[in-house]
Amino acid sequence: MTRLTRRYRFSASHRLHTASLTEEGNRELYGKCNYPYGHGHNYELEVSVRGNVDPSSGMLVRVEDLDKLVAGRVIRDMDHRDLNGDVVEFARLVPTTENLAEVVRSRLKAAWAGTFGASGVELDGIRIRETGKNIVELRS
Amino acid sequence: MTRLTRRYRFSASHRLHTASLTEEGNRELYGKCNYPYGHGHNYELEVSVRGNVDPSSGMLVRVEDLDKLVAGRVIRDMDHRDLNGDVVEFARLVPTTENLAEVVRSRLKAAWAGTFGASGVELDGIRIRETGKNIVELRS
Amino acid sequence: MTRLTRRYRFSASHRLHTASLTEEGNRELYGKCNYPYGHGHNYELEVSVRGNVDPSSGMLVRVEDLDKLVAGRVIRDMDHRDLNGDVVEFARLVPTTENLAEVVRSRLKAAWAGTFGASGVELDGIRIRETGKNIVELRS
Amino acid sequence: MTRLTRRYRFSASHRLHTASLTEEGNRELYGKCNYPYGHGHNYELEVSVRGNVDPSSGMLVRVEDLDKLVAGRVIRDMDHRDLNGDVVEFARLVPTTENLAEVVRSRLKAAWAGTFGASGVELDGIRIRETGKNIVELRS
Amino acid sequence: MTRLTRRYRFSASHRLHTASLTEEGNRELYGKCNYPYGHGHNYELEVSVRGNVDPSSGMLVRVEDLDKLVAGRVIRDMDHRDLNGDVVEFARLVPTTENLAEVVRSRLKAAWAGTFGASGVELDGIRIRETGKNIVELRS
Amino acid sequence: MTRLTRRYRFSASHRLHTASLTEEGNRELYGKCNYPYGHGHNYELEVSVRGNVDPSSGMLVRVEDLDKLVAGRVIRDMDHRDLNGDVVEFARLVPTTENLAEVVRSRLKAAWAGTFGASGVELDGIRIRETGKNIVELRS
Repeated sequence: MTRLTRRYRFSASHRLHTASLTEEGNRELYGKCNYPYGHGHNYELEVSVRGNVDPSSGMLVRVEDLDKLVAGRVIRDMDHRDLNGDVVEFARLVPTTENLAEVVRSRLKAAWAGTFGASGVELDGIRIRETGKNIVELRS
Repeated sequence: MTRLTRRYRFSASHRLHTASLTEEGNRELYGKCNYPYGHGHNYELEVSVRGNVDPSSGMLVRVEDLDKLVAGRVIRDMDHRDLNGDVVEFARLVPTTENLAEVVRSRLKAAWAGTFGASGVELDGIRIRETGKNIVELRS
Repeated sequence: MTRLTRRYRFSASHRLHTASLTEEGNRELYGKCNYPYGHGHNYELEVSVRGNVDPSSGMLVRVEDLDKLVAGRVIRDMDHRDLNGDVVEFARLVPTTENLAEVVRSRLKAAWAGTFGASGVELDGIRIRETGKNIVELRS
Repeated sequence: MTRLTRRYRFSASHRLHTASLTEEGNRELYGKCNYPYGHGHNYELEVSVRGNVDPSSGMLVRVEDLDKLVAGRVIRDMDHRDLNGDVVEFARLVPTTENLAEVVRSRLKAAWAGTFGASGVELDGIRIRETGKNIVELRS
Repeated sequence: MTRLTRRYRFSASHRLHTASLTEEGNRELYGKCNYPYGHGHNYELEVSVRGNVDPSSGMLVRVEDLDKLVAGRVIRDMDHRDLNGDVVEFARLVPTTENLAEVVRSRLKAAWAGTFGASGVELDGIRIRETGKNIVELRS
Repeated sequence: MTRLTRRYRFSASHRLHTASLTEEGNRELYGKCNYPYGHGHNYELEVSVRGNVDPSSGMLVRVEDLDKLVAGRVIRDMDHRDLNGDVVEFARLVPTTENLAEVVRSRLKAAWAGTFGASGVELDGIRIRETGKNIVELRS
């Protein structure tokens, strides 16, 4: 079993705020991440796939295929965008890094079979680095 | 002449848009940096000072003094903030990295004498890294 | 199951030397890490927690809670300190990176329930980077 | 169970090309990695070992032993070399990162018992970073 | 005067060898960089421009213009290429990092006026990082 | 004029303390850098040389010559050492990064002519990174 990881980057803004709490409750829970006008990050996304190397090509996947999938399902909608305003899942979901990871995984899973169904290669997991101090990972 | 550089970080959002152009002109000039809801970055700020090392302490400056100046004049107003909405200079100035660098330099210069006036230590310059691919520098 | 990792840094000195060996045996075993006056590193500590994301907050833990735990149990005693002279566990234990990792894990485990007991969030593991070439990890 | 990882670097060239495809098939499969004169990378290799820390030394392995093994079996033959022309396994194997990882693992496994047989320390896995965007991992 | 720096990457192979020396002289002068089949690197290129910020756009240059110039004159010919075999200047010039920097500067200078002639923005210099240990810079 | 920079690393411990101040004065001036048992860092040293590229070799200097000079004059005495206890200049000089930079420059200058006297290549300057947040530079 071989694992291959590709790294992507996107720059986005967000604001942590939930309708289920008062203004004061939001400030207490999210601190400076709740400032009214929002803020932003250079997000780093790692997508890992696992499977068996194709003996004829010596490759697990064509990285162009993976890049195209991630570009079309994630980067196009999130790069230079505001997560709260531009990404439909966050209309009713707080765009924490944990929820962002879940949205990214869910989008990739939904489209996986269309690209990699025949190959037997699986999505192993994703990792999102929000800042140099903060990483969230999901196994898939 | 010795030069000391300190590195700071802040996460902010912004949108590039100027009132002097049409919507279409803005889109053409700023591209994806003009998307309506904005986006954001993990900014990295380097502040360099130059001068003579104090022979008794072996130090150019007390880094706590520099940190306090930068925190009070720059980080407090910009970290986890929206440059367009939260930083007064950008009410009428497009928050490009070039203009951001000028705003940071200008704020530090204005407060410099109050902290370092007696020491003879000067602000040498600043450097702002917006992403891993983009750096703007100003000598002071 | 989501995993969140926070990165911390501390600068410490240490000397590798064991009373169970002769001077010559120590030099042979630890090489330059046995030099008599010691040396030091900028340690990088990653602490990973795992559990289920709280659907109302969208967060696994409040990172402030984790930061406070790590600061109080690890950073306060180790940053800008000498591991041999300042950290009580190393009075009789050689401060190799392997032992340091065990001490950090043990300290966090002992205090875990006090901070995260009610939440069901567990310590997943820790990772200590001593230099750019050397990493030790413990699963918890 | 403790895991220790060491990081090594080597600079090598390679060309992706397989005799089982036509020139055009190679160009389509490998893209710019198939350019006729080849190209190269600064490879970063991480080797992880797992086992129990020796209570008397406080160490999992002597890193000099691991370094010597990796230097003799991998770095000596690959650093500043052309993978296709200089590394015997690639006479009939395409030097993709996936195959390179397998060759490195295989070489280390074959020599493992000679160095670490008595210690009970096992090869946990390896990780090769070809560029900042591409990583391949193998568990052992 | 503001300075803006953009970072680019390309992966290339090369071999250091000069016709003016014997085989033995080449081996002595260039060491492992003279191995017969060559080797390669992930080169990192920084291009710096200096000038006055356009007050209406708040920008020194449109980075797309700079990216296009660098892509067309440097990256297209050097990425995933062999410097000795694919880059015409190195038919008679040893592709050391020093000479590579000169070739890159010369190519950018030759095309500068066509892109930036009207703007008054000048090429400030370039920096090439061959490995994490080796950097060559040229002011322009 | 070409500039070449080489990066070196060494791990050392130190304590900031001056005999010209009381214990309390030392604590106030140096803060946690004055803790009695000292602490340490992974120092990163960049040495830059400038001059004209030798047209026959295509090189500014043989990096082996520079590496040997830096190893013999700096790394050998400082790596895995305690600056206060092991480096003679710090018997009466506080080992701040500023003073450390001056000691390194002074050692390199003193030995420069012996290695590079005939070549016309000059020491351009040095840069010492103590942590990811702190850099000191000296032009030579």
